[in-house]
Amino acid sequence: MIVRSPETFKEKQQIETRVLHEAMVIDLQKRQVLVREVNNVKENWEPFDYLMIATGAVPICPNVPGIDADGIYGVNTLQSGINIRRDVDLKKPKRAVIVGGGYIGLEMAEAFVLRGLEVSLVEHADQVMNTLDGDMAQMVSAALAQIGISLYMQESLEGFDVREGKLQAVVTDKRSLPTDIAILGMGVRPNSKLAKEAGLRLGTKDSIAVNDRMQTDIEGIWAAGDCVESFHLISRRHFHIALGTVANKQGRVAGINIGGKYATFPGVVGTAVSKICSLEVARTGLQEKEIRQLGLEYVSGKINSRTRAGYYPDAGRITVKLLAEKGNGRLLGGQIVGKEGAAKRIDVIATALHAGFNLEEMLNLDLSYAPPYSPVWDPVLIAVRKTRKQMENSICK
Amino acid sequence: MIVRSPETFKEKQQIETRVLHEAMVIDLQKRQVLVREVNNVKENWEPFDYLMIATGAVPICPNVPGIDADGIYGVNTLQSGINIRRDVDLKKPKRAVIVGGGYIGLEMAEAFVLRGLEVSLVEHADQVMNTLDGDMAQMVSAALAQIGISLYMQESLEGFDVREGKLQAVVTDKRSLPTDIAILGMGVRPNSKLAKEAGLRLGTKDSIAVNDRMQTDIEGIWAAGDCVESFHLISRRHFHIALGTVANKQGRVAGINIGGKYATFPGVVGTAVSKICSLEVARTGLQEKEIRQLGLEYVSGKINSRTRAGYYPDAGRITVKLLAEKGNGRLLGGQIVGKEGAAKRIDVIATALHAGFNLEEMLNLDLSYAPPYSPVWDPVLIAVRKTRKQMENSICK
Repeated sequence: MIVRSPETFKEKQQIETRVLHEAMVIDLQKRQVLVREVNNVKENWEPFDYLMIATGAVPICPNVPGIDADGIYGVNTLQSGINIRRDVDLKKPKRAVIVGGGYIGLEMAEAFVLRGLEVSLVEHADQVMNTLDGDMAQMVSAALAQIGISLYMQESLEGFDVREGKLQAVVTDKRSLPTDIAILGMGVRPNSKLAKEAGLRLGTKDSIAVNDRMQTDIEGIWAAGDCVESFHLISRRHFHIALGTVANKQGRVAGINIGGKYATFPGVVGTAVSKICSLEVARTGLQEKEIRQLGLEYVSGKINSRTRAGYYPDAGRITVKLLAEKGNGRLLGGQIVGKEGAAKRIDVIATALHAGFNLEEMLNLDLSYAPPYSPVWDPVLIAVRKTRKQMENSICK
Repeated sequence: MIVRSPETFKEKQQIETRVLHEAMVIDLQKRQVLVREVNNVKENWEPFDYLMIATGAVPICPNVPGIDADGIYGVNTLQSGINIRRDVDLKKPKRAVIVGGGYIGLEMAEAFVLRGLEVSLVEHADQVMNTLDGDMAQMVSAALAQIGISLYMQESLEGFDVREGKLQAVVTDKRSLPTDIAILGMGVRPNSKLAKEAGLRLGTKDSIAVNDRMQTDIEGIWAAGDCVESFHLISRRHFHIALGTVANKQGRVAGINIGGKYATFPGVVGTAVSKICSLEVARTGLQEKEIRQLGLEYVSGKINSRTRAGYYPDAGRITVKLLAEKGNGRLLGGQIVGKEGAAKRIDVIATALHAGFNLEEMLNLDLSYAPPYSPVWDPVLIAVRKTRKQMENSICK
């Protein structure tokens, strides 16, 4: 899981990498960073010409009673994954409670079920996967319930019941859930403390503000990844998104610019995919609640189809939902839930979002067809037809 | 495989369907069609207000010695498929020769291998799958050889060795291939004889010329599907393509217009996918020889990657090749060969072609990433980077 070691950086790219060192202070005036070696009191001011801030995101960790007890884990580093696995192997817990129904929470829930644990999931919203619309998330909930996960929705974490240092239960505002292990998957926030203290301008949710070249307001100071603000090409607003694919692209752009060439990162459309057991889940663009927040009106079309020709073996179910702006028919977003072959179809919708296509422009997209891969009309196009129909109905009413 | 029976047409849609009837003559002046019942001499003139021509394509069948012998099959109707299967089940042939290395030829070759036959394939071009560039087709040839198919490239069919009505061998300009059964997969041509005789204007390869509404030059006469000419959005030329997905979309547009509403079919980008054993093959846009024929200059970028994150189980190989116009970087086409999850990625390239994207616009496409579905940079985007690099090299030289 480690892409490159400090040794490889040194040998292949002549980059000196100091792991187990922490940046404590950025001094923008004197162009230097105070660095402290981990487990050491010694601090050094390191001078710089250019500074790249890539501090990532930190998991949200609520300040509730018992939070520091053994057996309560976040899943944010390779080491935390190793720790959880060791705990499961050694202590053989029988019950697990997951707090948070996002990607991390659901993937951990599935992993525990596969290892034979009895799993409960607590989520303060009224649905899992908050980046999906409620009706699509319902299909994910059904799949979770089917593999035996107990869901407790609209319940908030109040703390942990800990006796003699040992975790007994997860306590919500509605009940106490006895457990041997607990996982926190409550989302992340930009790790922008250093940048903020240095006086760099922050944006949405305290993410670091950057321009399209990944440059902060201060000459020579760059930032990229989960710690910065991104531009959403469909809402045309800045927002914060913490995804590996976005971080990676931003880092490349920053690197090209720092190296003296020219590159821009124009923004994202909010594409994400996940896998829960045999269910593939994907989303891009804006979801219903985001569209409403922008004050826009929309129509939606949702269809059920198959991932392959109906008569072909393993033609799995697929549900595609599209959202389009009322009047002009501009595509605003899409969501897909289905079996094998479903999720990656989101990329067609994402590309259409980048193109600024309306439903008419999407209707005759020359998408591929052969029985092993698709019905004659790809499910995405069937959804376009359905959404157009809804649009016509909304006009004629 | 039959989508709707005559009875269903009648009951559900009040459409009278006359199967086993043949249209013999179209009289454009008197607005009538001469119809003859199959196996009957009786003919009737049927009057019409609107006429829809959907005569499809006919397989190319060379006029060579022995072509009428038993054991030589085209694969163009459901019945021809049934006939071949019955022949294989009853006569248990040991050897098969396929003439033609296109979709039909390769799919039949694979089917025969799976049934234990010794299979040879004859192709007059220097590669199989002529709609791919030679280097990509080479990967398909390798897969065919690996499952034991003998390939005879750059050989032309000269005839069949038939003794006492029984097929003995397929004869090419270079050898005689002893066989028990032979399959013709030599492509199709538009079935436009009726339209031509009626005086309707024909286009490329004698396909019926239509406008974007699928209307011929004569008021009230419409045509759609494998018998008509299509517009290629990238070459900006008319051409002939016989694919179910295009035919289906054209039929829908014609139907809407005939019904009094308004729809257009702006054209295609030439997307097609196929499956040869475990190998997925896809193409869209223009291939190298088509670009050269248009007098355009181009650069190409080809990369090898994985269909999933490298560490994820079943991360299969995938090769993506992109072609872009020199100078402006306009995307011209793409081809993909790879394992499970490879082919459907062609739809992203097809959508980008519809959008008229250049490589810069494709570079930061927000495509989905999660380990079960993709490396952090989707292989399509890695190919964009590679092609951009080739572009820079071509400029700096």
